[in-house]
Amino acid sequence: MIKKQVYLDYSATTPVKDEVLQAMLPYFSQNFGNPSSLHTPGQETRAAIENARKQLAAFIGADPKEIYFTSSGTEADNWAVIETAAQKRNKGNHIITTKIEHHALLETAEYMEKTGFNVTYLSINKEGFINLSELEDAITDQTILISVMFINNEIGTIQPVKAIADIAKKHSIIFHTDAVQALGNIPINVKELGVDLMSLSAHKIYGPKGIGALYVRKGVNLPNLLHGGGQENKKRPGTENLTGIIGFGRAAALAAENLTHHIETVTELRDYFVNEVRSNISDIIINGSMERRMPGNANITFEFIEGEALLLLLDLDGISVSTGSACSSTSLTPSHVLMALGVPVEKIHGSLRFTIGDFTTKEDLDYTIASLIKNVEKLRKISSLSKESNY
Amino acid sequence: MIKKQVYLDYSATTPVKDEVLQAMLPYFSQNFGNPSSLHTPGQETRAAIENARKQLAAFIGADPKEIYFTSSGTEADNWAVIETAAQKRNKGNHIITTKIEHHALLETAEYMEKTGFNVTYLSINKEGFINLSELEDAITDQTILISVMFINNEIGTIQPVKAIADIAKKHSIIFHTDAVQALGNIPINVKELGVDLMSLSAHKIYGPKGIGALYVRKGVNLPNLLHGGGQENKKRPGTENLTGIIGFGRAAALAAENLTHHIETVTELRDYFVNEVRSNISDIIINGSMERRMPGNANITFEFIEGEALLLLLDLDGISVSTGSACSSTSLTPSHVLMALGVPVEKIHGSLRFTIGDFTTKEDLDYTIASLIKNVEKLRKISSLSKESNY
Repeated sequence: MIKKQVYLDYSATTPVKDEVLQAMLPYFSQNFGNPSSLHTPGQETRAAIENARKQLAAFIGADPKEIYFTSSGTEADNWAVIETAAQKRNKGNHIITTKIEHHALLETAEYMEKTGFNVTYLSINKEGFINLSELEDAITDQTILISVMFINNEIGTIQPVKAIADIAKKHSIIFHTDAVQALGNIPINVKELGVDLMSLSAHKIYGPKGIGALYVRKGVNLPNLLHGGGQENKKRPGTENLTGIIGFGRAAALAAENLTHHIETVTELRDYFVNEVRSNISDIIINGSMERRMPGNANITFEFIEGEALLLLLDLDGISVSTGSACSSTSLTPSHVLMALGVPVEKIHGSLRFTIGDFTTKEDLDYTIASLIKNVEKLRKISSLSKESNY
Repeated sequence: MIKKQVYLDYSATTPVKDEVLQAMLPYFSQNFGNPSSLHTPGQETRAAIENARKQLAAFIGADPKEIYFTSSGTEADNWAVIETAAQKRNKGNHIITTKIEHHALLETAEYMEKTGFNVTYLSINKEGFINLSELEDAITDQTILISVMFINNEIGTIQPVKAIADIAKKHSIIFHTDAVQALGNIPINVKELGVDLMSLSAHKIYGPKGIGALYVRKGVNLPNLLHGGGQENKKRPGTENLTGIIGFGRAAALAAENLTHHIETVTELRDYFVNEVRSNISDIIINGSMERRMPGNANITFEFIEGEALLLLLDLDGISVSTGSACSSTSLTPSHVLMALGVPVEKIHGSLRFTIGDFTTKEDLDYTIASLIKNVEKLRKISSLSKESNY
């Protein structure tokens, strides 16, 4: 087996596509004026930012004025939760979210609990979906915010966002969704969905790291999270991440053009991969529904092994995968998402996330499957948890 | 006069130097792994970030563990003020700052006032410096934070940071300084200065926009401003702005190598410019002290004209300057810094900020002076405020 480099961690981050980098390049050293400056170099970069805002807005069916650039999806999540709570505090102190949110949302929710809010964490069924009746039942006259992620970053399940938005609207509750994994992986139209706030990030759609956005529906009054200059229509201060914003806009435009093709090819590759793993390796479990699932996601439990050991052996073969979300991968606590899914702890430890993207080839997957067959067998032989040792 | 492009707005932002961009380029599309990932691509970018942290730390005499990357100087200012206040709330509710801070600090201070804090805004003398006795007198047993900017972004005056730090230390009060304009323009050693918290930004030192940092002295317990993943030693979540951080590190290393030369050449050019303006144009005032002043800053009042009109005429000649800080330049309110300096409102409206940097040449300045002579004369002729009209 000749060593290859195979990247199967597109949900952790994506490479910047060349078209995106080319769009960014002139704005580092040639067109670098501060967008708040009155002179021509400043006005030129101001125009470039507004063009990027239009590109991103068009991709999600929003008005450009509803897009506020942030430094990350995490900042967008913090802004949405903390400032909705601040704005609605007089109305109530109850927030509803789920057990499977990204840490950016969960840790913010926990912070809100420390400041006197009550938070309900909805459970998920064994397919990975929340129960809409449980959501309705959780609503009280104190509920001021519902936050449910669009696509889960670990198991790829797509929540029924439109139905959740309808429920929130019926009860006049602000609805926020973290759509960081959804953007570029399914069609999104904020008007049709009826969401109030939506967190987005560039580096999951072949744009640069360090730039995100919050969609704020016109009519939603969201106080500032950060205080300072008049940038972003006075809602998010700090000199704009000029190249980041331009890259995000170009990445959004490219993803829009490419969306149908992306979904088809990546879904086909993912299904091929899952079927090959199923056919060639015994005692595996696919975590989460195979319906309503993000195109590129395959979260697989390999029974009787440690996922981290398998990750490292795959890495030695040049293959990059994840044991969970990148944001929690350096901690040893078992995935809260797989816990919520009801996967037993020892099986969680044997779970890996493979995420396929636009640069993945069938050859990459064949190489990965060969490496998996070899390394799973190796680990099961030496594992004290192996079936043989139980005989 | 053959039209040139002359950029004299280095305090608003700087172009990314080629060495900096070259250091960043491999990390967009080749080495793009998420630094939180366990696989080799993730570990490689993790190492690159830690190298950048060392470069920035070395430039200010800090330990790398004391550097936390943020999205901007604004975020660093917000973090320092809001979370020091949160941490020290049980001790007291009084903050001391100055009338001439950047909007990032002033607006945050105003936000703190809304949440129950009292803020003292120190005045400045006609040279632009705070009075240390006034600072001492302002301190009460409720004072929990002193925040004084290192170098003012409009008039370039360098505050006595070490003396302020000594006073803060004597009273066991946290001392924060916004050093966004100071970095790369004067030598900074946080240990010698004795500051607790220091805000920094890359795009003022020929690094990219969208990346800043907060220095947090070891021993200072600063709660998180943002909540989420474990990045930045669990203090500042969100997938790292990988290329931004690498660019900031390289820019810091370059600025460190270049500092003595930068100060000498930029000071010499600035003094040449000021002298030429003085010699060739009547009725001008240099705002702020010419001692203890940022190398490249010249803030000049041209009496009997509107600065914005002059800015636009200079812009037609290809010359980029500022009427104040870029962050407030799109508002029509007179500069709060020049107000604090005691400049009458009509003279504030005739003031322009010229900031000189590493790519400025003597020819750029000669061209600018020729344009100034021509355009100041033109505006004074048509101005109803002109001396002639008062005869």
